[in-house]
Amino acid sequence: MNQSRLNRTAEKMARMGLDQLIVSAPSSVFYYTGLWVHPGERMLALVIGRDASAVLYANRLFALGGTSQVPLVEYDDTDDCVLALSQGLKGPALGIDKTWPSQFTLRLQAARPDLKMCVGSPAVDETRLVKDEAELTALRESSLRNDRTLSAVIPLLRPGMTEKEAAALYLAESEKNGSSGPSFEPLVCFGENCAEPHHASDATRARKGDMVILDVGLTWQDYCSDMTRTVCFGQPTDEMKRVFDLVLAANKAGREAVRPGARLCDVDRAARKVIEDGGYGPYFIHRLGHGIGLECHEFPDVSAASRAVEQVGMVHSVEPGIYLPGKFGVRIEDLVAVTPDGCETLNHAPRDLVQLCIQ
Amino acid sequence: MNQSRLNRTAEKMARMGLDQLIVSAPSSVFYYTGLWVHPGERMLALVIGRDASAVLYANRLFALGGTSQVPLVEYDDTDDCVLALSQGLKGPALGIDKTWPSQFTLRLQAARPDLKMCVGSPAVDETRLVKDEAELTALRESSLRNDRTLSAVIPLLRPGMTEKEAAALYLAESEKNGSSGPSFEPLVCFGENCAEPHHASDATRARKGDMVILDVGLTWQDYCSDMTRTVCFGQPTDEMKRVFDLVLAANKAGREAVRPGARLCDVDRAARKVIEDGGYGPYFIHRLGHGIGLECHEFPDVSAASRAVEQVGMVHSVEPGIYLPGKFGVRIEDLVAVTPDGCETLNHAPRDLVQLCIQ
Repeated sequence: MNQSRLNRTAEKMARMGLDQLIVSAPSSVFYYTGLWVHPGERMLALVIGRDASAVLYANRLFALGGTSQVPLVEYDDTDDCVLALSQGLKGPALGIDKTWPSQFTLRLQAARPDLKMCVGSPAVDETRLVKDEAELTALRESSLRNDRTLSAVIPLLRPGMTEKEAAALYLAESEKNGSSGPSFEPLVCFGENCAEPHHASDATRARKGDMVILDVGLTWQDYCSDMTRTVCFGQPTDEMKRVFDLVLAANKAGREAVRPGARLCDVDRAARKVIEDGGYGPYFIHRLGHGIGLECHEFPDVSAASRAVEQVGMVHSVEPGIYLPGKFGVRIEDLVAVTPDGCETLNHAPRDLVQLCIQ
Repeated sequence: MNQSRLNRTAEKMARMGLDQLIVSAPSSVFYYTGLWVHPGERMLALVIGRDASAVLYANRLFALGGTSQVPLVEYDDTDDCVLALSQGLKGPALGIDKTWPSQFTLRLQAARPDLKMCVGSPAVDETRLVKDEAELTALRESSLRNDRTLSAVIPLLRPGMTEKEAAALYLAESEKNGSSGPSFEPLVCFGENCAEPHHASDATRARKGDMVILDVGLTWQDYCSDMTRTVCFGQPTDEMKRVFDLVLAANKAGREAVRPGARLCDVDRAARKVIEDGGYGPYFIHRLGHGIGLECHEFPDVSAASRAVEQVGMVHSVEPGIYLPGKFGVRIEDLVAVTPDGCETLNHAPRDLVQLCIQ
């Protein structure tokens, strides 16, 4: 049980006027308790009190009894788990995890009409967003291993290879580098597919002259990495070079704008301005980045709509891109950790436009 | 848009007294609309009316406009999507999908205090549980390919191989068999690990004398397969043979109990009784099975607590097991489709206790 994390969350609960908070996302339950539980359709609830106490409600199937110091209420498949939970709640103000399945919230509302429920996730999100030293160490190491893995894979790419085959090379290499698995399915895009930011690796084969986007990440001691590099099969065209240089400059401008107190919307702006000034504004069609930690996408967004402000210990991506439908695309993504005087870039793999062997 | 599925759901809504129903699970949205949307943290809602109409609310990012016949309301990241949805709802009785994230339900309750919300999923679950001909064809083919894949992998198992390596063999072979991916991470267990029903394949190496459980499935045209076979490295002990024969008899008894009108709790009982009569009752520690279709685990449970009754067109697993902690375990799982006079077993891979090569 991580009492300092519970204390920080309880402070935020007090500011929100919450008496108790139901935490259910597996990564958040792990964050406080050190226990990974994947409940599937079953109910999982860590109830945090305003006094920074915590009790975990879990199905007996997960056999958590005796494995930890976490106060535990177990139930069976034949028990009414929501009723058991409702009896342990005080009130009246109860925060609910944003992702808790509605079946539990609706049944809890029926069992306890006296409780006033609202989305309580900001108390968790704002705790998790500032990483402690142990987390930063794991995030650094995760990105170093991601750097090493991708740097080993890029020289192996050949024309004729499919996107899926290239993705499989990354997975095999990441296992050699000690990762416990990918943090998301590797996104490898060849040629025109680079113009789709959400393209899933498929049977498309690489051809001479193709741009190649590799968006990859792994997990190391539960923490995620996430990096994108763009390379080219053979000689890039002038337009490719121009677009690449703009994205690289936007990546640099975004990272340079990161410092404690900076608004995330302004970090997004700093990178976006480079691309707009270069005439490609309409082709940068997504947010600049996202928080990362135990999950690959965490609070907060780095976007024009974000109201968050950079704080020391925050870790997020900076990933500008330009997508030209029917032609090609470029994205360059690094993770940054906010430091007292700016930020530390967690990725060290070269960013330049590598020309791959076309033999 | 599949109007006959919408009609069947609207009938069930009328019986439940629902005016409208929010469907959000990606597999259910696909079931009605033919569109796969993976919304991540974004809101996705198919609103079904009691008149069997349907409107899909989705983020513009998913670019669904123009791709289908589905009436569509799109929103942007900067819009208040819950407000847009709330304006399209009539009322007063609104069913909510059991898995819809609570953030949307709580915000909708604040925007529309006049609506009476309850869990509306039974109207969807009870429609999806009876498979139509196209679904049965896909489920049959998915299981045939799973049979073929596992049958090709079993002769490749060797002592010294890790569980993860064996799982990777299954994945590679399933791709050769045209699958679009596994329906769940292959569970391969060696030796003592067989005694944990939820053991995840790890770096454990196979040794002579080990029992081996292979619980594997793939997807074929969106439909899942799921099968378990237990084999042995070399000569099984007398206890292994005794336990294996009991589980095999329980699997047969379970499948033989499946017929229209049978209660699922009685199907569970039929298989469980064989194991109890053999003296191993306390070591069969999970339900007998689960529904399957677009998802690997669907409504209903086949368990002592199930209130469902077999209907023609239902498809579910029959998977008895015996788990002896510190020693070994055996599970044998097949999928069955309910027919007018009993059931059709969708798996055809041999069930006998194969003795693997130990050289």
